[in-house]
Amino acid sequence: MNKQITLAHGNGGGAMQALISGVFIKAFDNPLLSTGEDQARLALSELTLLGDQLAFTTDSYVVDPLFFPGGDIGKLAVCGTANDLAVSGATPRWLSCGFILEEGLPLATLERVVRSMAATARGAGIQIVTGDTKVVPRGAVDKLFINTAGLGVIPAGIDWGVTRIRAGDSILVSGTLGDHGATILNLRENLGMEAELASDCAVLAPLIATLRAIAGVRALRDATRGGVTAILHEFTRGSGCGMDVSESALPVKTTVRGLCELLGLEPLNFANEGKLVLVVDPAAEQDVLQALRGHPLGRDAAVIGQVTNDKQVRLRGLYGVSRLLDLPHDEPLPRIC
Amino acid sequence: MNKQITLAHGNGGGAMQALISGVFIKAFDNPLLSTGEDQARLALSELTLLGDQLAFTTDSYVVDPLFFPGGDIGKLAVCGTANDLAVSGATPRWLSCGFILEEGLPLATLERVVRSMAATARGAGIQIVTGDTKVVPRGAVDKLFINTAGLGVIPAGIDWGVTRIRAGDSILVSGTLGDHGATILNLRENLGMEAELASDCAVLAPLIATLRAIAGVRALRDATRGGVTAILHEFTRGSGCGMDVSESALPVKTTVRGLCELLGLEPLNFANEGKLVLVVDPAAEQDVLQALRGHPLGRDAAVIGQVTNDKQVRLRGLYGVSRLLDLPHDEPLPRIC
Repeated sequence: MNKQITLAHGNGGGAMQALISGVFIKAFDNPLLSTGEDQARLALSELTLLGDQLAFTTDSYVVDPLFFPGGDIGKLAVCGTANDLAVSGATPRWLSCGFILEEGLPLATLERVVRSMAATARGAGIQIVTGDTKVVPRGAVDKLFINTAGLGVIPAGIDWGVTRIRAGDSILVSGTLGDHGATILNLRENLGMEAELASDCAVLAPLIATLRAIAGVRALRDATRGGVTAILHEFTRGSGCGMDVSESALPVKTTVRGLCELLGLEPLNFANEGKLVLVVDPAAEQDVLQALRGHPLGRDAAVIGQVTNDKQVRLRGLYGVSRLLDLPHDEPLPRIC
Repeated sequence: MNKQITLAHGNGGGAMQALISGVFIKAFDNPLLSTGEDQARLALSELTLLGDQLAFTTDSYVVDPLFFPGGDIGKLAVCGTANDLAVSGATPRWLSCGFILEEGLPLATLERVVRSMAATARGAGIQIVTGDTKVVPRGAVDKLFINTAGLGVIPAGIDWGVTRIRAGDSILVSGTLGDHGATILNLRENLGMEAELASDCAVLAPLIATLRAIAGVRALRDATRGGVTAILHEFTRGSGCGMDVSESALPVKTTVRGLCELLGLEPLNFANEGKLVLVVDPAAEQDVLQALRGHPLGRDAAVIGQVTNDKQVRLRGLYGVSRLLDLPHDEPLPRIC
């Protein structure tokens, strides 16, 4: 019984209906999804009970391979979009989900991905409430891509964003850097570091929720494509301030550091799927660090540097020499997320 | 100057930033998009002024070819998602946009698609407020796919949906059937009917807005993949009622009918991208017909049948003989939307 996805699964007819009800609705089951309408409908009166701003974001997921230590494309599609909501202070609540499937994809592969999405969403209190499926002929897409868009509500009084960053602020990360990128690189390039590498793919909303009560949080981001370096550049662009981070303060696992040294790559540029970069008022630094370390997703949190006035992103080396940290132009490989 | 998309345009670094600011933000320009944050933030107090329910939907677009008479993948990606919102009675307002690009895609192709999206959105009062770009190596995707997710607000007092359909209701369509599907089929199969075929791709929200004041509208859908037949089956599934439509009442352009007869296909199964199927209280039938015909997007509107008690979808032929109208299993070709 090697059932495969066929073009009929995307043509609007009976096979598509069977796929929707037998796979998607069965796994994602919730009252908003199961109405039989073309759109989910959310009562605004319920949203206003949760906060005063709606956060809305989207990402597509094209990771290769589909399954990797620590996660898979389905888990990633929930975590990545949930995290892009959560860094605004929002509680992620509702996702849309668009699948693009290659003709011939084993149905079992799709089911495994869907089960993973459903479990990740359920664990995070997120509902997948609307969706779409397209099937394209063999060769028009590589196996399976997913887009998720997400909605969350930002509680009243939370105002985190790049424009709030000030010179003198502290820069923190929530844990070890580069785990996801190193895991995918190791798999794709057959580097053979098998035992100790796993993606850090996780929904960060529960960790971020512990920060809401702390005054002095300026801005946070999850450091995915482009790694911490890309986020530091975004902070500089958005705030007009400089970022000065210290190499010796960076939490990097031994295996990841080894892989980087082997290939001459910089862990600061590696993708993460469960790590935050935070800028906070120095007066709040210790409270934030304590809150992060008190949660399993933040136990390796560290202060890594300081916001400056000079509008440059700089890395201070082990011997105190500081150099410009350029935006990475070419990551070592595409399709990491 | 044949600039192309490279993997660097999707890696989170400088080339990606340049693409985002130079192409996407430039074309879609609006204050919600340009904040430099990873999510758009909408004030719930403004949403509640527009209505009492939020509508949320998504679709991916994989149409081949990218450009066709009457539209292109960018216009389609705005119209399709806007229409899935509008059929709930919502005013479509905000879209997310996820691009998946093939390495080597001409930059000019992307720019043409983006300009078309921007123009379509602007014309419909819709803002593209958040987005994502992935680039995959040559061969991992065919040229360019787009996902859009959409948000709209349903005004208070509007309650349209399949569960409101009753036996005895009238079934209408808002215009000629099968134009989009026939246009793509003609192009892809080189059937040579060039002069008169064009996609009906359009944002239907202004047409639908004219119906809000009419009591007795039960449910509407835009008839895309699977055509009118698929919608009639959705209505039957959602309402438990039967659908009985009359062949002679179906508005179909001569060219589309000719193409269908040539290939032995059924225009009721062909995709549309700017046509509604509506179910209304028979007491409201003439008001709805008049409202539709009074708008340029509905001037060929027609009553095509009646809701019955027997939970079957039936087509009454020209000589009065009625047959079951099965859900199409295989559309004549994939990638029509």
